[in-house]
Amino acid sequence: MQKNIKAWMESNRSNGVKLLQKLVQENSTRGNEYNAQAVIIEKCRQMGMHLDIWDMKRENLEEHPFFKCDRENFEGNPNVCAVWKGGGGGRSLILNGHIDVVPAGDEKDWEMDPFSGAVKDGKLFGRGSTDMKGGTVSLLLAIQALMELGISLRGDVIFQSVIEEESGGSGTLSAVMRGYKADGAIIPEPTNMKLFIKQQGSMWFRIKVKGKSSHGGTRYEGVNAIEKAVKVVAALGKLEQKRNEKITDPLYEGIPIPIPINIGKIESGSWPSSVPDLAIIEGRMGVGPSEKMEDAEKELAACIDQICREDRWLQEHPLELEWFGGRWQPGDLDKGHPLVETIQHSYKCVLARPPKIEASPWGTDGGILSKGADIPVVVFGPGRTEAAHDANEYIEIDKIFEAAEIIALTIIDWCGAE
Amino acid sequence: MQKNIKAWMESNRSNGVKLLQKLVQENSTRGNEYNAQAVIIEKCRQMGMHLDIWDMKRENLEEHPFFKCDRENFEGNPNVCAVWKGGGGGRSLILNGHIDVVPAGDEKDWEMDPFSGAVKDGKLFGRGSTDMKGGTVSLLLAIQALMELGISLRGDVIFQSVIEEESGGSGTLSAVMRGYKADGAIIPEPTNMKLFIKQQGSMWFRIKVKGKSSHGGTRYEGVNAIEKAVKVVAALGKLEQKRNEKITDPLYEGIPIPIPINIGKIESGSWPSSVPDLAIIEGRMGVGPSEKMEDAEKELAACIDQICREDRWLQEHPLELEWFGGRWQPGDLDKGHPLVETIQHSYKCVLARPPKIEASPWGTDGGILSKGADIPVVVFGPGRTEAAHDANEYIEIDKIFEAAEIIALTIIDWCGAE
Repeated sequence: MQKNIKAWMESNRSNGVKLLQKLVQENSTRGNEYNAQAVIIEKCRQMGMHLDIWDMKRENLEEHPFFKCDRENFEGNPNVCAVWKGGGGGRSLILNGHIDVVPAGDEKDWEMDPFSGAVKDGKLFGRGSTDMKGGTVSLLLAIQALMELGISLRGDVIFQSVIEEESGGSGTLSAVMRGYKADGAIIPEPTNMKLFIKQQGSMWFRIKVKGKSSHGGTRYEGVNAIEKAVKVVAALGKLEQKRNEKITDPLYEGIPIPIPINIGKIESGSWPSSVPDLAIIEGRMGVGPSEKMEDAEKELAACIDQICREDRWLQEHPLELEWFGGRWQPGDLDKGHPLVETIQHSYKCVLARPPKIEASPWGTDGGILSKGADIPVVVFGPGRTEAAHDANEYIEIDKIFEAAEIIALTIIDWCGAE
Repeated sequence: MQKNIKAWMESNRSNGVKLLQKLVQENSTRGNEYNAQAVIIEKCRQMGMHLDIWDMKRENLEEHPFFKCDRENFEGNPNVCAVWKGGGGGRSLILNGHIDVVPAGDEKDWEMDPFSGAVKDGKLFGRGSTDMKGGTVSLLLAIQALMELGISLRGDVIFQSVIEEESGGSGTLSAVMRGYKADGAIIPEPTNMKLFIKQQGSMWFRIKVKGKSSHGGTRYEGVNAIEKAVKVVAALGKLEQKRNEKITDPLYEGIPIPIPINIGKIESGSWPSSVPDLAIIEGRMGVGPSEKMEDAEKELAACIDQICREDRWLQEHPLELEWFGGRWQPGDLDKGHPLVETIQHSYKCVLARPPKIEASPWGTDGGILSKGADIPVVVFGPGRTEAAHDANEYIEIDKIFEAAEIIALTIIDWCGAE
């Protein structure tokens, strides 16, 4: 069977590459997911899968405690689930990929059009190639291979192409709320072919720092919000250090900062000769795999209070902390879990060596599946972690097919075949 | 004569207030100076002054080493000079006011329309009332009073209403290049009725700080431009301290920071979960009254070099320093100069006490007149320093007429009368 799968992959190589090109060429940044979803829908329809396509509604999502999202309207940019029903008696498996991509950033940093899908030296380039349309193609190839090789599964395979992962996971949350559940799940985020069985969660914060404006020539009559913001940046650095010193999980060995606090944005002032009276800092706080979001929230809030206590101006003009945008639940699966063992076994069959098992440096939709629906999740995919969100994002084409083979074998093992 | 002037001011009080209201009600922010200039032109025409109205041309200004300006087009927003020719044998005097105002800022911070010109409790409110249309009205009242009282001057009075002061002084520079020169000049910027005989110069800088982007969850793979920018802010603080320790001029006694380095703006990043790869800092460097701009430039450049030398990343990705926007030449007049003594004397006549003499915390067009045309300059005006550039800017109406009286007496003393 493994040989047949490999042979199928080889003969379908150009089809797989073309599918990924089509997906990358559809710019599916937030609010523009439709055209890329249309490619997915078309493919699943051709494969004969049972399709469920739905527009999410904010009022429904708001009922869930995990919902954290600043997008008002999802209309016209649907979620997609496609089910390959098994004959019964096997374990079910969710294969989840997100269709949304982060913005291309400054186009000048790209050597070519960010949505080219160009192929060069065995790599396919473009925003979303690695994160994570390449992974999604691996999933579809794995399913298609088994179908075309005539496999009859016992357990169900539930393929999901969701929106909103990059903004906090409302797409996967919506699928959970719609009732999709399974005995296990694989999410092919860009892990460099490693198995991430734990995932760092994360949440976004915004800190407003007040100052007092004045003319720059008499700046001592004002209070510079940038100078106060510098204190906040320093204190967040110390908090990050303190939180990371507590992480002892051996999976994080060699990771310089297991749960970083990233300062992603600062904006203050509008005129060189004026003292700015407001600075806004935005960032991302990493949450440990087994940490509660609420506890991390409290730690940051306490740090902010402490900064204010130590500064006379800030005592009277306290910093404002706000949690905004998305949040990504952490995830935590035991190394000995059967799903981990199954994927490990498939990996060894295909690549003749054991996979590396690590904790992921970012939250994925896995947190929502595991914390929100009690589904064991392994994050494993063909993309390059370092290329995600970066200019000149790319994926190695060989890896897409290696991952597809491994996932195909895992489906057979996990779901069982007649 | 002093009594006659005072009486004239009293009987022309409402005319003076109306003139200032008209000027404030014309929003003359950069690029929109025309309508306020039209009010000035109409007034000078009525007074029978010899008018010179011209559109500045960038290609002409570019020939002057002081020219530093990011505005491409001055067309339709003219400079105005109005001359009251003397009979000969006296000293000439330039009376210079700028018509441009800084933007109103956030209208929510204003208790009324920023361009209302409303009068309340002896104050006239609105952007430009203090900085410096109120001062300009004092100049025009002084001239009109002397004219209507039948004075025949020996020296010329050259009234100037210029654009671009808030952006670096191209308006006054253009007047200098057009050949306007005099034996002395008064600029009624908002000095709280103090005499500023020295003025801090200033220039704008922009520092580009490069980082390396990465995902926030693996932020150790990137280099956060904000963290490097924090180093720059700290180093500029130290440079400011070092520069100010060298200032020993007794005129700066009691001024906490005679020549500040103001960080006016910082911008970095666009996504909370990404490590930003660029931070842009903009600010204003104060220049000592007798310091050369070039020397101040060199000091900042050396500081930037030093920061780079001490940081391995910045050694390979050096900070970029750029001087942009306007620059305001410093000014420096001796306390014993006859122009200072003349104004002091007039001041004592009108207010029965000596004026305070200080160094100004900001550059004015005075620097261009003194450094560019060797004209002795005193900055003295009725506006409130603290109200300039602020929300709810206002001027005390009494002060406008006090300043006008003092300037009228000064004109007689300085220019001489038949």
